[in-house]
Amino acid sequence: MGVVKIPSFCLALLVAGVVPGSRSVVAEDRATEAARLTEDGRLVKPADYREWVWLSSGLGMTYGPAAPAPGQNPSFDNVFVNPRSYRAFIESGQWPEGTIFVLEIRSSVSKGSINRDGHYQAGLRAIEAEVKKDGKWTFYGFEGENESAKAIPRTASCYGCHATNGAVDNTFVQFYPTLLEVARAKGTLKPGVTE
Amino acid sequence: MGVVKIPSFCLALLVAGVVPGSRSVVAEDRATEAARLTEDGRLVKPADYREWVWLSSGLGMTYGPAAPAPGQNPSFDNVFVNPRSYRAFIESGQWPEGTIFVLEIRSSVSKGSINRDGHYQAGLRAIEAEVKKDGKWTFYGFEGENESAKAIPRTASCYGCHATNGAVDNTFVQFYPTLLEVARAKGTLKPGVTE
Repeated sequence: MGVVKIPSFCLALLVAGVVPGSRSVVAEDRATEAARLTEDGRLVKPADYREWVWLSSGLGMTYGPAAPAPGQNPSFDNVFVNPRSYRAFIESGQWPEGTIFVLEIRSSVSKGSINRDGHYQAGLRAIEAEVKKDGKWTFYGFEGENESAKAIPRTASCYGCHATNGAVDNTFVQFYPTLLEVARAKGTLKPGVTE
Repeated sequence: MGVVKIPSFCLALLVAGVVPGSRSVVAEDRATEAARLTEDGRLVKPADYREWVWLSSGLGMTYGPAAPAPGQNPSFDNVFVNPRSYRAFIESGQWPEGTIFVLEIRSSVSKGSINRDGHYQAGLRAIEAEVKKDGKWTFYGFEGENESAKAIPRTASCYGCHATNGAVDNTFVQFYPTLLEVARAKGTLKPGVTE
């Protein structure tokens, strides 16, 4: 499996960005979909992101440390967003303050049960997040069973790549077909990035 | 693209099962996640299924009339379930009365934007549904812009295949990794179907 140059999030820094940290929460919100940060600025993994709004999944789009090892099957990437921000995007074609994306990377299986040729999803390989706060996006990488992750440094290449190539704001709406239609209708696509 | 023998739903009868029908609703529920049937027994397409709980996506698992034509890219299959039934499954490992599955089939694209090798999702190819009512599952196939679909006849092969090969009840939980863990923990897997 080759390394593919397609950042959904900044996977290149996934491993470097993850160390165990404090669980104490200073910015807690009762709504489970609000970003929760620990005293030392780590993002608490949203417990219920699998019940958030799923935007899309791709296969074979991961790169960097989260890319499959040679001989491994390609990974699926699953993208979720908090429901309140999803509904705001449907209305406006833009991401409001407080938006949280969660990217889940899973291995694929091509032979199992009655499936013989297609690819379906299996074990978790990585979880990442991207949060919009004070108008700025910040990336976080969770590893294994870690329940919080520190921010990936702003010098990382993911920040510039998302800002330049994301179809709307910092996000790859060009890969989320239903949101791409919304952004087209609302006129919020960045010029030239969807071709 | 070959035809793959992996039924997520009964795609083989998709086209045959779709004709325009009445919009009058006799079994309406204010909760958008309840199944709505027209006077003549057609299922009204759930308007907000993209905000339901997504279970998983596969690539290249479609077959029958919804399978890609020769030379076309493989399809993604995206599976959603109504949130109330999802939460019941998390608790019990079983699907309650009123469960609605929606299967969305989308084309895949492998060259676009900054992606050069992976596959991401694009246009809608088909929508299907499966409803559990009075303890029995019924399949429905929507086509194009149709807002309702009649039930697929019980003589269709999808019914027997799902009943025999679905890991839990009539459903392919073996392809939904987070639910597979739940079913294992709750002991609700059908013996022998996940190998």
